[in-house]
Amino acid sequence: MSAYLPRTAIIGAGISGLTAGKMLTDYGVPYTCFESSDRIGGNWAFGNPNGHSSAYRSLHIDTSKHQLSFRDFPMPDDYPDFPHHSQIKAYLDDYAEAFDLLSRIEFTNGITHARRLDGGGWELETQRGEQRRFDLLVVANGHHWDPRFPDFPGEFSGITMHAHHYVDPRTPHDFSGKRILVVGLGNSAADIAVELSSKALDNTLTLSTRSSAWIVPKYFAGKPADKYYHTSPHIPVSWQRKFMQVMQPMTAGRPESYGLPTPNHKFFEAHPTQSVELPLRLGSGDIIPKPDIACLDGDTVHFVDGTSGDFDIIIYATGYNITFPFFDPDFISAPDNRIDLYKRMFSPGIDDLIFAGFAQAVPTLFPFVECQARLIGAYAVGRYRLPSTGEMRRVIKSDTEFYTGHMLNRPRHTQQLDHYLYEHNMRVKEIPAGMRRAATMGAPQWARVAADTETRHAEPAIAGSPQER
Amino acid sequence: MSAYLPRTAIIGAGISGLTAGKMLTDYGVPYTCFESSDRIGGNWAFGNPNGHSSAYRSLHIDTSKHQLSFRDFPMPDDYPDFPHHSQIKAYLDDYAEAFDLLSRIEFTNGITHARRLDGGGWELETQRGEQRRFDLLVVANGHHWDPRFPDFPGEFSGITMHAHHYVDPRTPHDFSGKRILVVGLGNSAADIAVELSSKALDNTLTLSTRSSAWIVPKYFAGKPADKYYHTSPHIPVSWQRKFMQVMQPMTAGRPESYGLPTPNHKFFEAHPTQSVELPLRLGSGDIIPKPDIACLDGDTVHFVDGTSGDFDIIIYATGYNITFPFFDPDFISAPDNRIDLYKRMFSPGIDDLIFAGFAQAVPTLFPFVECQARLIGAYAVGRYRLPSTGEMRRVIKSDTEFYTGHMLNRPRHTQQLDHYLYEHNMRVKEIPAGMRRAATMGAPQWARVAADTETRHAEPAIAGSPQER
Repeated sequence: MSAYLPRTAIIGAGISGLTAGKMLTDYGVPYTCFESSDRIGGNWAFGNPNGHSSAYRSLHIDTSKHQLSFRDFPMPDDYPDFPHHSQIKAYLDDYAEAFDLLSRIEFTNGITHARRLDGGGWELETQRGEQRRFDLLVVANGHHWDPRFPDFPGEFSGITMHAHHYVDPRTPHDFSGKRILVVGLGNSAADIAVELSSKALDNTLTLSTRSSAWIVPKYFAGKPADKYYHTSPHIPVSWQRKFMQVMQPMTAGRPESYGLPTPNHKFFEAHPTQSVELPLRLGSGDIIPKPDIACLDGDTVHFVDGTSGDFDIIIYATGYNITFPFFDPDFISAPDNRIDLYKRMFSPGIDDLIFAGFAQAVPTLFPFVECQARLIGAYAVGRYRLPSTGEMRRVIKSDTEFYTGHMLNRPRHTQQLDHYLYEHNMRVKEIPAGMRRAATMGAPQWARVAADTETRHAEPAIAGSPQER
Repeated sequence: MSAYLPRTAIIGAGISGLTAGKMLTDYGVPYTCFESSDRIGGNWAFGNPNGHSSAYRSLHIDTSKHQLSFRDFPMPDDYPDFPHHSQIKAYLDDYAEAFDLLSRIEFTNGITHARRLDGGGWELETQRGEQRRFDLLVVANGHHWDPRFPDFPGEFSGITMHAHHYVDPRTPHDFSGKRILVVGLGNSAADIAVELSSKALDNTLTLSTRSSAWIVPKYFAGKPADKYYHTSPHIPVSWQRKFMQVMQPMTAGRPESYGLPTPNHKFFEAHPTQSVELPLRLGSGDIIPKPDIACLDGDTVHFVDGTSGDFDIIIYATGYNITFPFFDPDFISAPDNRIDLYKRMFSPGIDDLIFAGFAQAVPTLFPFVECQARLIGAYAVGRYRLPSTGEMRRVIKSDTEFYTGHMLNRPRHTQQLDHYLYEHNMRVKEIPAGMRRAATMGAPQWARVAADTETRHAEPAIAGSPQER
């Protein structure tokens, strides 16, 4: 293990940045977390002034608290099965306070540019215009804040907006007495369509989907449905998918039963949409299902089945781009949400850069980012070391095939990941292997660099860091 | 069969009155339908000016259209599985037009008093102050319009209202930013609690229930749940109830899973509550479950578990009274919704009076009233005759035991009836028996009366009646 601990920067104080910070603290690694907002929580900070929250007023998380809790910080017993976003935020606030994370965060001082130094290390430019230098950079800026819009031929003359900006039936527009088209069939699309289709609002609500989706309930037989879901690492995954496909009719039936298009994928081959209300609203005629959009023309939208409709508002609930606004695009970017990372964390050849939280983890991101955070801590102190870049590239390819090979080749699905399998692989295989590598390898790059140029680190030790206690 | 057809009056032009009128027309019986409103549909005429509709703006019927259609008038193919109240009303309008029922209805001319004449026949007093005489009276004034309130000790200082008067989140009160207590756990209670618990309305929503209830989904495995439900007359009913009890966990689990009190009855021993949304809202913390109310004190409500809460509004979704405002109470009434009727239609000893639609038929009232209407037609022309009053009283007792003996002894459940068993009994047993009785008995009472006093019938033949065609 290296005696030299890398000065570490974390970009973002959402769940990925917070857990990374907590684990770095556990390992005694000094770090600074740069947050563009005045508060923690990122996506879970409803109305976040930095514009990075996609939470709407009525949002409850789609994963039950039993799956959601961090292992080292259980959710309060009095929380409901599916907490409201305000409860998730309060939980994160408690987490940050319990582990004394706030003192390490520089608020309203996000990173505007990150430049890798020749030979390693980072020069960061902050919102306040400072230049700051670090040995190790943890990118935790999230992947649910940069709205992705589909590109349909023609022009729509009404209001066009993204689900990212939807707040409630009165915000940011008056959604009553309107002809509304929601595009997409993910959880946000389902929630927003259900909310705005309430007869009390007097809207006509149409839902257009290209790929269609399988709908699963949040509850099954009186228990949160995700309590039944736990992929086993000891049974071939293809068998488990097959089992889920056989069982599916017991849960919610085929999407066609509700008038939705036939999915272009089998059940469990892509992230299902969790909604108990959507099938009911479709079956009650409150939501009118339509296939993909063919083209836009004034206030008319033409669908691929030859039908058309006139609308006042189109809400695109069509997902988000993975964006790193602080990197030069030719350095690292994720076109079509594709980015090749070893264990979803390391870009081969750049040893002092770690990505945290960049996956569509099933059932949820929370235990996944916690699992990654543990590795970040171990990596920072040199207890875990990476394999060769060639080996990393080989594993990236086989992992991509393993996690997403059966799925649709779509931006929405490139980041899909079964957390149970991921966590099992990390625990029984990857971390032990990385520890064996560490035992035979030299010091990490930053320790070597530090030994070479003791004076180049401009960043002072942080007050209250474990080193100083 | 009697050559003399009874001049018949129907009180009410809701589904019971309309189907009764249609069948009387089929049998060539002249009749007049007295309707207090300016429109047909009764409960299904949203905003009915006579105050007899309990429909709220967002109401969809809880029974799928597959169970709902009249046998002789299918619902339109383009209707959704669970039609909106406006579609039910349109369907009834089409029904009335298709069978030329409107010309027989006197609108805004309800019956204010009905007096049985010595020796049979009826003198009716109408809204317009007329005296009208008939041979046969069909009471179809419905049983979902006279709100029933529970009687709790103490006084509540906030707004007290009944679900009957609930329209939408802005009507009759502004239901936003309020502390709301919904009392009851029937379908209306569930619907209203779900609607007003929307986070967008910023209410706190508490639900209090005395008996609790089993919650079942409207959809199961992609099909309307009631498609799976069909009691067989060929298997002991107790076995079928047992089977449903065994299967129940597959559908929605125990109410306690969602924080509701333990039901004081087994699954399927009382009408279950159909809601896919209520368990979710309870499990999301948007609806706070409470047991029965102990007492009221200002704006505070004390519950029997010792907890209490402060509220702005109490909405009692506690059901309806069966009320016959046109009968003298000592003639016929239904205290605690108990009324002993042979086949839910005939009061022993009063042969020229028929009740239509007085049951909580499972799965729904529509085919039940149609089944009763057929018997009304056959009875009016003398093809079906009743047994002796002693036999009727014996059958009432055994039928009550058969349909409700396993249930809670509560006003809500006294009228419970499994329509599949009822219809089967009527078709294979009761109607053939009544036809055999008709073959051996003399003319019906009204024919005898008519022969005695040809001149006593004041009511002229109705223009357009089948007799005149």
